[in-house]
Amino acid sequence: MKNNYDFKVRWGETDAAGIVYYPNFYKWMDEATHEYLAAIGYPSSELFKEQQIGCPILEATCQFKQSLRFEDHVQIQSCVQEIKNKVFRISHLFFKGEICIASGYEIRAWTSFKGETPKAQSIPEEVREKMRGNIQIQA
Amino acid sequence: MKNNYDFKVRWGETDAAGIVYYPNFYKWMDEATHEYLAAIGYPSSELFKEQQIGCPILEATCQFKQSLRFEDHVQIQSCVQEIKNKVFRISHLFFKGEICIASGYEIRAWTSFKGETPKAQSIPEEVREKMRGNIQIQA
Amino acid sequence: MKNNYDFKVRWGETDAAGIVYYPNFYKWMDEATHEYLAAIGYPSSELFKEQQIGCPILEATCQFKQSLRFEDHVQIQSCVQEIKNKVFRISHLFFKGEICIASGYEIRAWTSFKGETPKAQSIPEEVREKMRGNIQIQA
Amino acid sequence: MKNNYDFKVRWGETDAAGIVYYPNFYKWMDEATHEYLAAIGYPSSELFKEQQIGCPILEATCQFKQSLRFEDHVQIQSCVQEIKNKVFRISHLFFKGEICIASGYEIRAWTSFKGETPKAQSIPEEVREKMRGNIQIQA
Repeated sequence: MKNNYDFKVRWGETDAAGIVYYPNFYKWMDEATHEYLAAIGYPSSELFKEQQIGCPILEATCQFKQSLRFEDHVQIQSCVQEIKNKVFRISHLFFKGEICIASGYEIRAWTSFKGETPKAQSIPEEVREKMRGNIQIQA
Repeated sequence: MKNNYDFKVRWGETDAAGIVYYPNFYKWMDEATHEYLAAIGYPSSELFKEQQIGCPILEATCQFKQSLRFEDHVQIQSCVQEIKNKVFRISHLFFKGEICIASGYEIRAWTSFKGETPKAQSIPEEVREKMRGNIQIQA
Repeated sequence: MKNNYDFKVRWGETDAAGIVYYPNFYKWMDEATHEYLAAIGYPSSELFKEQQIGCPILEATCQFKQSLRFEDHVQIQSCVQEIKNKVFRISHLFFKGEICIASGYEIRAWTSFKGETPKAQSIPEEVREKMRGNIQIQA
Repeated sequence: MKNNYDFKVRWGETDAAGIVYYPNFYKWMDEATHEYLAAIGYPSSELFKEQQIGCPILEATCQFKQSLRFEDHVQIQSCVQEIKNKVFRISHLFFKGEICIASGYEIRAWTSFKGETPKAQSIPEEVREKMRGNIQIQA
């Protein structure tokens, strides 16, 4: 399953060099992951309210090839590349038109916040199915 | 009671015009208020943990006279100008060297988060004393 | 002329109280003003590139009535309320559904960045017309 | 040469989970690098003004072991681990007291902004000396 997240660079995201301040790329990856989860049927706010599940970050990387400027139109293409027992790795490609201007990934843990301390959980099979993009057959 | 909050403009706080992106002034006023509360003996984190008291914002204004740039040294001088029953008004003057480059204020409510919905409370007399800068005599 | 700016509250815009960190309202007012200028035919990036005109902030105020939470859908309704020779005042109403949860305004100066120091300029008549929402008849 | 950058977590850096919103770690790494460059004698603002040199980011990674909360005291320990011809890799360890709660690095290019397009340059020997922590003997 792949999801696209489109947005326009805002003024406050630029810096005095006239280009986007780089930590914003991680903010956008975070937003793209929330959009991804919503797209496969698990909006973060509902997931937390109904199941006390969140997906805290373990690691995030981004490589920057070209800079972005105010009012550039950007598309992030996100897909889950790897699903282990309790963690998944979601990759994000940043496109300005046809050009890939940055690429990164996040590793996140499927985590229950029910008890006193958060605890990583096995990712449910139905979530895996959706991340893989398979259609889940309901008997 | 007056409190000074000193900081240096960071790169990420500038925008493509080469100056500070204006919403950062409100972020700094918020930080200056937290510093103020800590200075009079009520660090926000303790106030919330021990008494479930917070000070949500009701209104904030800022007037901008001169812009700030990367690595400018700034001092905010904060003092509580007005204390009503449940709300207080804290003013913030922004100085770059001797020059006042911006001035603003926030109106905040002394609020209990104990019940299901937050509820504004009378500001305790000992807090008023400290905001006024009077020394509290303990019998 | 009135313009609507719609968005969804992002995770990074919340704070540890579970609600939106208040300086984001000013970021959103700034964004709404850029959207407004684009809607009347003057996208900020073009205005600057073609005429070296920008609209730096002189003052901004916001009053907060209700808090916002993650994934809330928000609409800002922006309109220019007052046009003086060189400055204009743009008001912003924040709606969550039918409820107005905050209201604010910005005062900005129509400013040329052609010379060594920025200089406020008379707002051109065609801009005034568009801000007022009148249709400009071209002979 | 190692440099320490100390700060306190601010309210606006937390999110609705009560912990620090993760892109802030990259903002802090950026700040720590500016502090590092200043500590070895090249404050970014002077470097750019005098030599039109900046250090744009090529890649940034962070691994998160423990979360941070409002008012936590943090120390980032930064040192340049690798110096190639035109790029360097600076590592950042995040400490809360004795505990390393996150670790990351940035790869940046020594870049001239003199011409029309930015161009990576060989890192000058005197900069290398200082990054390595050797004392430079002046004849």
